[in-house]
Amino acid sequence: MFDKYKDECGVFGIFGHPEAANMAYLGLYALQHRGQESAGIISSDGAQLYSHKAMGLVADIFSEDVLKRLPGYAAIGHVRYSTTGGSHLKNAQPFVVDYSRGGIAVAYNGNLVNAGLLRDELEAYGSIFQSSVDTEIIVHLIATSKANTLTDRIADALKQVKGSYSLVFLTETQMVAVRDPNGFRPLALGRLKDAWVVASETCAFDLIEAEYVRDIEPGEMLLLDRFSPKSFRPFDKAPYTPCVFEFIYFARPDSNIFGANVYAVRKNLGRELARENPIKADVVIPVPDSGVPAAIGFAEESSIPFQMGLIRSHYVGRTFIEPKDAIRHFGVKIKLNAVKELLKDKKVVVIDDSIVRGTTSRKIVKMIRDAGAREVHMRISSPPTTCPCFYGIDTPTKKELIASSHTLDEISKYITADTLKYLSVEGLYKAVSDAGASFCDACFTGKYPVAFPAEGREPQLALFK
Amino acid sequence: MFDKYKDECGVFGIFGHPEAANMAYLGLYALQHRGQESAGIISSDGAQLYSHKAMGLVADIFSEDVLKRLPGYAAIGHVRYSTTGGSHLKNAQPFVVDYSRGGIAVAYNGNLVNAGLLRDELEAYGSIFQSSVDTEIIVHLIATSKANTLTDRIADALKQVKGSYSLVFLTETQMVAVRDPNGFRPLALGRLKDAWVVASETCAFDLIEAEYVRDIEPGEMLLLDRFSPKSFRPFDKAPYTPCVFEFIYFARPDSNIFGANVYAVRKNLGRELARENPIKADVVIPVPDSGVPAAIGFAEESSIPFQMGLIRSHYVGRTFIEPKDAIRHFGVKIKLNAVKELLKDKKVVVIDDSIVRGTTSRKIVKMIRDAGAREVHMRISSPPTTCPCFYGIDTPTKKELIASSHTLDEISKYITADTLKYLSVEGLYKAVSDAGASFCDACFTGKYPVAFPAEGREPQLALFK
Amino acid sequence: MFDKYKDECGVFGIFGHPEAANMAYLGLYALQHRGQESAGIISSDGAQLYSHKAMGLVADIFSEDVLKRLPGYAAIGHVRYSTTGGSHLKNAQPFVVDYSRGGIAVAYNGNLVNAGLLRDELEAYGSIFQSSVDTEIIVHLIATSKANTLTDRIADALKQVKGSYSLVFLTETQMVAVRDPNGFRPLALGRLKDAWVVASETCAFDLIEAEYVRDIEPGEMLLLDRFSPKSFRPFDKAPYTPCVFEFIYFARPDSNIFGANVYAVRKNLGRELARENPIKADVVIPVPDSGVPAAIGFAEESSIPFQMGLIRSHYVGRTFIEPKDAIRHFGVKIKLNAVKELLKDKKVVVIDDSIVRGTTSRKIVKMIRDAGAREVHMRISSPPTTCPCFYGIDTPTKKELIASSHTLDEISKYITADTLKYLSVEGLYKAVSDAGASFCDACFTGKYPVAFPAEGREPQLALFK
Amino acid sequence: MFDKYKDECGVFGIFGHPEAANMAYLGLYALQHRGQESAGIISSDGAQLYSHKAMGLVADIFSEDVLKRLPGYAAIGHVRYSTTGGSHLKNAQPFVVDYSRGGIAVAYNGNLVNAGLLRDELEAYGSIFQSSVDTEIIVHLIATSKANTLTDRIADALKQVKGSYSLVFLTETQMVAVRDPNGFRPLALGRLKDAWVVASETCAFDLIEAEYVRDIEPGEMLLLDRFSPKSFRPFDKAPYTPCVFEFIYFARPDSNIFGANVYAVRKNLGRELARENPIKADVVIPVPDSGVPAAIGFAEESSIPFQMGLIRSHYVGRTFIEPKDAIRHFGVKIKLNAVKELLKDKKVVVIDDSIVRGTTSRKIVKMIRDAGAREVHMRISSPPTTCPCFYGIDTPTKKELIASSHTLDEISKYITADTLKYLSVEGLYKAVSDAGASFCDACFTGKYPVAFPAEGREPQLALFK
Repeated sequence: MFDKYKDECGVFGIFGHPEAANMAYLGLYALQHRGQESAGIISSDGAQLYSHKAMGLVADIFSEDVLKRLPGYAAIGHVRYSTTGGSHLKNAQPFVVDYSRGGIAVAYNGNLVNAGLLRDELEAYGSIFQSSVDTEIIVHLIATSKANTLTDRIADALKQVKGSYSLVFLTETQMVAVRDPNGFRPLALGRLKDAWVVASETCAFDLIEAEYVRDIEPGEMLLLDRFSPKSFRPFDKAPYTPCVFEFIYFARPDSNIFGANVYAVRKNLGRELARENPIKADVVIPVPDSGVPAAIGFAEESSIPFQMGLIRSHYVGRTFIEPKDAIRHFGVKIKLNAVKELLKDKKVVVIDDSIVRGTTSRKIVKMIRDAGAREVHMRISSPPTTCPCFYGIDTPTKKELIASSHTLDEISKYITADTLKYLSVEGLYKAVSDAGASFCDACFTGKYPVAFPAEGREPQLALFK
Repeated sequence: MFDKYKDECGVFGIFGHPEAANMAYLGLYALQHRGQESAGIISSDGAQLYSHKAMGLVADIFSEDVLKRLPGYAAIGHVRYSTTGGSHLKNAQPFVVDYSRGGIAVAYNGNLVNAGLLRDELEAYGSIFQSSVDTEIIVHLIATSKANTLTDRIADALKQVKGSYSLVFLTETQMVAVRDPNGFRPLALGRLKDAWVVASETCAFDLIEAEYVRDIEPGEMLLLDRFSPKSFRPFDKAPYTPCVFEFIYFARPDSNIFGANVYAVRKNLGRELARENPIKADVVIPVPDSGVPAAIGFAEESSIPFQMGLIRSHYVGRTFIEPKDAIRHFGVKIKLNAVKELLKDKKVVVIDDSIVRGTTSRKIVKMIRDAGAREVHMRISSPPTTCPCFYGIDTPTKKELIASSHTLDEISKYITADTLKYLSVEGLYKAVSDAGASFCDACFTGKYPVAFPAEGREPQLALFK
Repeated sequence: MFDKYKDECGVFGIFGHPEAANMAYLGLYALQHRGQESAGIISSDGAQLYSHKAMGLVADIFSEDVLKRLPGYAAIGHVRYSTTGGSHLKNAQPFVVDYSRGGIAVAYNGNLVNAGLLRDELEAYGSIFQSSVDTEIIVHLIATSKANTLTDRIADALKQVKGSYSLVFLTETQMVAVRDPNGFRPLALGRLKDAWVVASETCAFDLIEAEYVRDIEPGEMLLLDRFSPKSFRPFDKAPYTPCVFEFIYFARPDSNIFGANVYAVRKNLGRELARENPIKADVVIPVPDSGVPAAIGFAEESSIPFQMGLIRSHYVGRTFIEPKDAIRHFGVKIKLNAVKELLKDKKVVVIDDSIVRGTTSRKIVKMIRDAGAREVHMRISSPPTTCPCFYGIDTPTKKELIASSHTLDEISKYITADTLKYLSVEGLYKAVSDAGASFCDACFTGKYPVAFPAEGREPQLALFK
Repeated sequence: MFDKYKDECGVFGIFGHPEAANMAYLGLYALQHRGQESAGIISSDGAQLYSHKAMGLVADIFSEDVLKRLPGYAAIGHVRYSTTGGSHLKNAQPFVVDYSRGGIAVAYNGNLVNAGLLRDELEAYGSIFQSSVDTEIIVHLIATSKANTLTDRIADALKQVKGSYSLVFLTETQMVAVRDPNGFRPLALGRLKDAWVVASETCAFDLIEAEYVRDIEPGEMLLLDRFSPKSFRPFDKAPYTPCVFEFIYFARPDSNIFGANVYAVRKNLGRELARENPIKADVVIPVPDSGVPAAIGFAEESSIPFQMGLIRSHYVGRTFIEPKDAIRHFGVKIKLNAVKELLKDKKVVVIDDSIVRGTTSRKIVKMIRDAGAREVHMRISSPPTTCPCFYGIDTPTKKELIASSHTLDEISKYITADTLKYLSVEGLYKAVSDAGASFCDACFTGKYPVAFPAEGREPQLALFK
């Protein structure tokens, strides 16, 4: 599956490195898959913060010139997801402000479920908002804290918020990394010579040759400055419920998150899927890129040959001009093309990671059938997505999720597959057993680990356009 | 004189016009001389604010596409001055935020003398700052007001600030124009069919064919909405002290401000200058463009022929690459060139509006001398600039003002003129007598109409770069 | 008058300077008024040519980075005029090609009257054309010459062309400057330390502090290389007929061309105009910028006070968005605004350099009248423009020239002036008598010094768009 | 392997479609892998040619606005390869000129071996060159032909050239597709409703839903206009020697070229490779993307599990800033990362399509070893690349090809693999037997089907930079 979901973001931080901004740049580059809309880096030379943020891809935003203007031994960075509307520079991160204690910058991955209430309260006390991102709320809460230390102020602020957050803060002299008590989003700690590094995923460590040390723990606040790292536990204990969807779709397969390797878990998902629904077929093909490891696992388990039956184009730009003279399932065609020779007269099993609205799956099934396939069997390496995410994944509303209101048969018919099977929740848990954790599986089960206002997600405040 | 000073800004507002943003665009275009660094327009369609701000010139920033995305019947706009450092998009205006009562946008021309104190206070109460402009302070003060109406909240806020301000506010449904009690900066009210218009200078009315109605009065707050305009006087009465330097340098000669025409006043300045210091010479030449009317006045009064002896280039870009192989007085040469035929073997009177550091005057005198002039007599159409401005003109510090520490003779010698004469303060007042007002002449006299912290201007808070 | 005509171009060359490209950049900057559409520089380090051309203004095109990529001790440059259609990078100059003798670059100002015939002939022999500029024809002719030296090949080529040309050629090791036998376009020779410089106007010398030596003479071909300059006279003698319109409108007032100063000539034009048609009035105002010296001359001669009654905006961008809600004489308004105080109830004489179609003059007269003028008397500092130029000035067709088919009274009525007077051809010659030359005055008299195909100018070959 | 070679180009043409330029845009998008430096489209409306070319990717260059300015029912397009030096807009294609018969545009894929001689000859006859691409030579030859029809002129021209070419020509009213007698480069004919389409690869047909008809045959010239297609055979018969490297590396796996599917051939290459050099190992991994099908084939044949052990980043920009603090094998790291969990303690077989200089292979082997692999066995799905290509593949010089001067053992040692094996030439032929053709295998065997000047490839003429 490609770009069906948009992750909130990727965060990165480094403290104690002579080329901090350069390392942040490379780290963000490795995290680019977590957000392609905008990117930013804030650095500190101990006396002052330096900032550069822009719309676009990391490799386009940061030139040598720009990086030179980001001096210092500490830096944090952020990549943000891409949407068609509501994408404005003012929402780009890291967020950076002046307040009574000096400058502070924040890079945020997650989503607050009580953002609307907090914002209303803050505004009632006279706060002004210049963006529509949750990060601004957190900064307001820090600025109004009466506590004396940075970590206490951050703790004060975060005790008031509910939801998911993996955060990296930077002031002129300190860096703080925090993960919410449930540990929804990943955040790893690494070491690069004398410097400390934090990143959403370990693939960022690999590029800069940092060594993975451990995950920032759920509910942990880690202070990095010129002294030894200092760990704080200011929050009430909560069940550890990392986002299982990071394994299924978001994270890069070469990353390790929540104690397991993403590629390995995805392969397990494919294996379980094959076990649960045995089928005889001529070929197993993935919807690239996210479906590849699951398809390999499925192929291994089922002994059906694996092939790259759909070729993905990697040159897709931001907008694409559709000819008036309509082309069938155009939107999918500019990204995928079927290898007819592999599919002709074949009984095909196609592996995708999930189905959102069903429209893309429908186009993919047709594309495979147009390529001459005799039968098309869709297999999904996760359970039916029935509920929206409120913890940082940009899913559509419940109504738009096809599995929230349609039976398996109805969906199968809609996408015109010969058969359609999802992985069971049990199968999912078997596949992720290496990670040895409970998980947030709310998108499949509707069991939300952190309560939120009865009406569901408050509508995003429409700030000025 | 050219670009020696940088005016803080130009503001524009229109309420009740079907093409509000288009009119704001034209209005800003006419006010472009008041700020070439960045420009912005915020529009309202009654339900929502729409924003576009960018670095650069008005004609480059606003394309038809951009203007289409600024719908509605009301709009405010802003142009901001150009500096080499500290010029960031985050400081571009109009400033626009969400607060407890919805959205509010502000376009500001002026300068607060108690900005540092207010900012400290606000930060102490937990406010965060994302820019280094005074406007953000005003918005914070509005947001923390407990008053029930927009005008009361604005009054609450402005009662706390000291300094100069010509302001235009826009919410989803209302526009408010305010001028400080001293009336430092100009702000005029106009009428375009059914719409009300406000602008820093009347030249903006001319372009859109609005009719000048009257000035927004000192201390007046004018509410424009779907009802009749409503005038408020929330502030303590103060002496009317408009900025005399607007006449001398900033405003466009085709504008009327403070009840007089700028061109006419400048010509008077030249006439008085000639009267105070009679001289016999072959030719009077201006330093274009600002010196032209004064030179014409001087020529008329002295019966010395007027000529455009210095030709100005209008293609100067933002940066200019200086060759290694140094060219004499290079910085002036890319802007001005002497017409040798007019100056050769002549006794030349050159008219400029003011002298700041003296370095440019020195280059100009040399350029005229290199062109063959026998004598060069510099005449300045204002008194010596001895004190910095704290009310909105971006003058250098007192130390950098050559006239603050050097005698007339010393300056004359430094700039290598045969003679140098300034207009007297009395002459200045004669020239502006049409405007029939007292004025702020602090830059010449050091008499500051509004007190400010003893240390003088607080250093601009160095926000992150 | 502003931008009514578009000069073909400005050319510059320098040989023997360690910062040749930097000097070319400054030279082009000073010649920017001769063409704002595109600019280019070609440099040579003795072994190879280096090129950079782009659409836009000189100050925007050439950054320090770009200039670094133009090494060498010799360089030529070109600025080209701006039109709305037909403006393509492929037409940007200097033109640069490889041919049998190596590389050659050309910067061209002028127009060939037998371009169509030559192009047809060259195509018949198998030549291909990649642009629609005459320069490409000249290069083809050079490439097909069998002569052994560069100067002989250039001579071979130019003997075949008819029309006007001021040309600068650059090869890896030589520079050649040529002016057509009639000397239509200006081209001056200067000296900067050990380097030789050529430029369309002397204002380019002033900026780089080169010393004016002499004009390249009509029919002269000057070879500049590591030896002493060598002058050639390969063409048949022709009458010297420099373009009088350079004095009237194109050249910068601070330039000396054809042996006279442009400002001084323009002032003479104004004086003669006043002498020929005495009038009593309250004020004389120019249409800026080109009308200023003539208006000063007119004012001196007539003893009517001179004022800058029309203020010009210098921020006009390439495109301007006209509001739907039409503004009267909008096109003029974005460039000019009247100073009402100067014009109200006055009998106004307005000086312009020429009238093309009459539409702009009509708008200007109305603008002055709207400002309250009692009477508006238009005076033109040249004779009626009745015939198109075929030697390098981009005039419209004869049909579009209002004076080609309308009487003085009809034109006066059309532009709604109270009276309209042109300078006579005799007056014109008196004004330029300092230059002591016959001139090409074909635009006024229809007497074309160089014959051209009977049908008049062949329609520009519509290359692909 | 990634981006080791740079294919010359991809070409596309369509005749008889109301949205010709839109279709060309989509076609080029599908051919983007054949050239990422620049792209262009020329369209015709029957009366005139319209052109747009620019540096960059297809999806960035062609906006809706740009495509609107390319009207007509016929269009040709071109994508060009990316190099660091020598990449200039003037070399972008399609090439388009005016000549005696009107306009003509050419899109070219291939390379002329007698380009230098032809260019010298043409220059000797007076031709000028504005680019350094072979296409300009072909156009000169067409322009100098005396023949009366377009096809005869093209035939005249192409009879003089030697080398490889797949060409599409467009005039105002006709389109001509030609393939050289040896058929080096692919060129396919398709049908889209009433329109005829030609493209370098069939994947372009898939996107626009054109139907594949047949290949343009070696030595065939096909005229497409408003009449029925007309096939010409103007050239001497030559052996059919299509480029086998298109199968190995360049073409997209979903394309069919030379009568076979690329994916299928690549899988065969992997199978043969496994048969020739049996090995026991824990895992087979490809160097993505080109190595994937061969690795799948190898895995199937050897029964060793296939895994995506190297993850490729798809966000690589044009330039990448390397930190001072050197990172081991940095260049590879920004494109690839190893999945440690898959490789740790494993005996790994890694499949790549070819080795050029060996430097990248060396970095990849190290990366796999750093990931914990116990043994690394490199397998190449083609024979050793010992000779440069003169027919359109941008290989380095013979000296730079590691296999031209080193034994298998030496290369293996250099790249630090435990073992290294190439496919044999016999194995290669078995794998491509479906295509049932002889091939050009000069890069492996040094047997060049078309002779070229003794000195080998003439140095590319260094035009001006």
